[in-house]
Amino acid sequence: MSELALRAGKLDAADDLAALRERFVLDTGSGHEADAAGVYLDGNSLGALPANVPDRVADVVRRQWGELRIRSWDESGWWTAPERIGDRIAPLVGAAPGRIVVGDSTSVNVFKALVAAVRMAGEGRDELLVDATTFPTDGYIAESAARLTGRTLRAVTPAEVPGALSERTAAVLLNHVDYRTGRLHDLPGLTAAVHAHGALAVWDLCHSAGALPVGLDEHGVDLAVGCTYKYLNGGPGSPAYLYVRGELQDRFDSPLPGWNSHAEPFGMDPVYTPAPGAPRGRVGTPDILSLLALEAALEVWDGVSIDAVRAKSLALTDFFLECVGAYTEPGRVECLTPGRHEERGSQIALRCPDAGEVMKRLIARGVVGDFRRPDVLRFGFTPLYVGFRDVERAARVLGEELL
Amino acid sequence: MSELALRAGKLDAADDLAALRERFVLDTGSGHEADAAGVYLDGNSLGALPANVPDRVADVVRRQWGELRIRSWDESGWWTAPERIGDRIAPLVGAAPGRIVVGDSTSVNVFKALVAAVRMAGEGRDELLVDATTFPTDGYIAESAARLTGRTLRAVTPAEVPGALSERTAAVLLNHVDYRTGRLHDLPGLTAAVHAHGALAVWDLCHSAGALPVGLDEHGVDLAVGCTYKYLNGGPGSPAYLYVRGELQDRFDSPLPGWNSHAEPFGMDPVYTPAPGAPRGRVGTPDILSLLALEAALEVWDGVSIDAVRAKSLALTDFFLECVGAYTEPGRVECLTPGRHEERGSQIALRCPDAGEVMKRLIARGVVGDFRRPDVLRFGFTPLYVGFRDVERAARVLGEELL
Repeated sequence: MSELALRAGKLDAADDLAALRERFVLDTGSGHEADAAGVYLDGNSLGALPANVPDRVADVVRRQWGELRIRSWDESGWWTAPERIGDRIAPLVGAAPGRIVVGDSTSVNVFKALVAAVRMAGEGRDELLVDATTFPTDGYIAESAARLTGRTLRAVTPAEVPGALSERTAAVLLNHVDYRTGRLHDLPGLTAAVHAHGALAVWDLCHSAGALPVGLDEHGVDLAVGCTYKYLNGGPGSPAYLYVRGELQDRFDSPLPGWNSHAEPFGMDPVYTPAPGAPRGRVGTPDILSLLALEAALEVWDGVSIDAVRAKSLALTDFFLECVGAYTEPGRVECLTPGRHEERGSQIALRCPDAGEVMKRLIARGVVGDFRRPDVLRFGFTPLYVGFRDVERAARVLGEELL
Repeated sequence: MSELALRAGKLDAADDLAALRERFVLDTGSGHEADAAGVYLDGNSLGALPANVPDRVADVVRRQWGELRIRSWDESGWWTAPERIGDRIAPLVGAAPGRIVVGDSTSVNVFKALVAAVRMAGEGRDELLVDATTFPTDGYIAESAARLTGRTLRAVTPAEVPGALSERTAAVLLNHVDYRTGRLHDLPGLTAAVHAHGALAVWDLCHSAGALPVGLDEHGVDLAVGCTYKYLNGGPGSPAYLYVRGELQDRFDSPLPGWNSHAEPFGMDPVYTPAPGAPRGRVGTPDILSLLALEAALEVWDGVSIDAVRAKSLALTDFFLECVGAYTEPGRVECLTPGRHEERGSQIALRCPDAGEVMKRLIARGVVGDFRRPDVLRFGFTPLYVGFRDVERAARVLGEELL
């Protein structure tokens, strides 16, 4: 056994979070090697299944829907699920209770957040800034928000944001961690810069929530959105969430004022009166199956410190880079992810010309990451269920496939 | 046994659709009366659980998500689910394949449809008409669509629509069946009137799809939306759908152009290029758990004719009215639902001053309808699982509680 493999075993033995792996359904392996089980490094795309979810979902379907039916809106807590589950996410992103509502997709929430931000910024501010390196949906939706509110959209890199801000800026949409490179942006610093120009900061937390501390309240973020199917393990396409800073909740003016966001939804009032607080971010009838699957999935966080998760995440990505360095010929891959901890999320992106083919071979050997065109291998490290032996094995198999 | 009860038994025995009840999970009853099982007349709010759904959902969770994980986007057909399930709904609403995409809530789809309709109508048309008697969310969302597109919103009753149309009208949003009264509006006639003035007709099918033929293609409806948790039995808050007329698909200009509606979603192109066809109505990542539960639920329609469903629906509501007439003191309730078949959906709305209290007592006795403020008792009749003995019993219990 190599020195790295030995060290991986020791790191796993010393890992306070190692036992959390039991809270997930992971491959048990069927080959002759001890480590023949798969290594799942795609939790930054779709988190693994928490072990308690199947029984919960079965109960929601068979008993809550099948037996109680319509009564479950009250008796099974369906009606209050969007805010109750928002309060479960809140401590993971540094938000007080009552700030987050769960529902709709990330894209729909980006739309709500941006249009509301433009409205709060006021008439005089006619420009929206968006991260030019962001996951494309944010740019597409920002374009639509700008078009519908009569603003101009300008795409800039996060590094260019401070220089691009002016008294014209209404709002800035940024990604906390870049989906492609895994670069972590300076949320406190950029938010402060945006505020210094009187604009609103809107953050997309898809690739950071559940992997590292966010500190929404602490840093005065105005609005934030995120998905729940990556590091929050909510299941394929599980509902996204919307955060609105406490002081702004009463001014949140939604472009999607569906009946669920009405102050009195069952009043059937033809005049719209928005609800106070987080429910104002709702739109239509909440999607209960997906919401309650997510609620169960969030229970894996019971007793888990996000700071401990961050520490392990950095240890995992450090160790992966070390192993890749040891197992791979110099220059064979280029690391797109910053080396500095304060600039790194919880994934490692490696560029190589034949990335698509390499990823296929890795997956065939049980090492599951993903490929982003044209030439990027992405490996996500979910500290709740990825261990150091997983990391060593993934790097070793990668090294073999890159020969 | 009363004459009506005897007749109910005969009607059930002659009902070609009676066997479909076996495709649902319904109360089996535990009291001493033969008919002690509950009567579920709230399928117009939340459809009963189709019997095949629990096992399907368990497979989606345990195997597709838990074992295949990210591979399921291809291998389990997750990626193509929104249009595949749209094609399942299509024959129920008279649409050709390729016209319907499933996803998001009804409210979000109303927004997409209205903004797209305004854009297709062109700059010169500055007015939106909305059904003043509609479910409030449609009015709220229409107000937002008007505000964001710089149009004026005018609320009129469906009867007033023909007189309100003009060369200023961009689009008209109407409900096919009124959620409160159960009144069925004249979709072919109103659509033709809207078209005669060069405007677009947008229909909300929440209370008609799955209960009666709609004929979207036949009547040239431009855009339509609907939920799937009422007569389509998709489960609590299951995803809604959007229909776009074939000739308009290439002109559909979405206000929510999320990455899933891009012509090449994984191209990660910073420039938005809309997909052709139904996928253009997508927004963000599809919600797989809810979509695939809905897909299973739609299998109850295999071999079922929507015309036969409509015939039984009318027979059920006719019989209910007859039983209510026989069991209830004249004048105790007022029927809000039209007597004429061509004006009746699949529910009966009865007004009485103490409706809230009456409904509580009915539910306590196993007859589940719902209450709409201030004074309406709603009873929905889902022909797939409601029988004539259910109807007779519900009317009998109602008569007893109204004494």
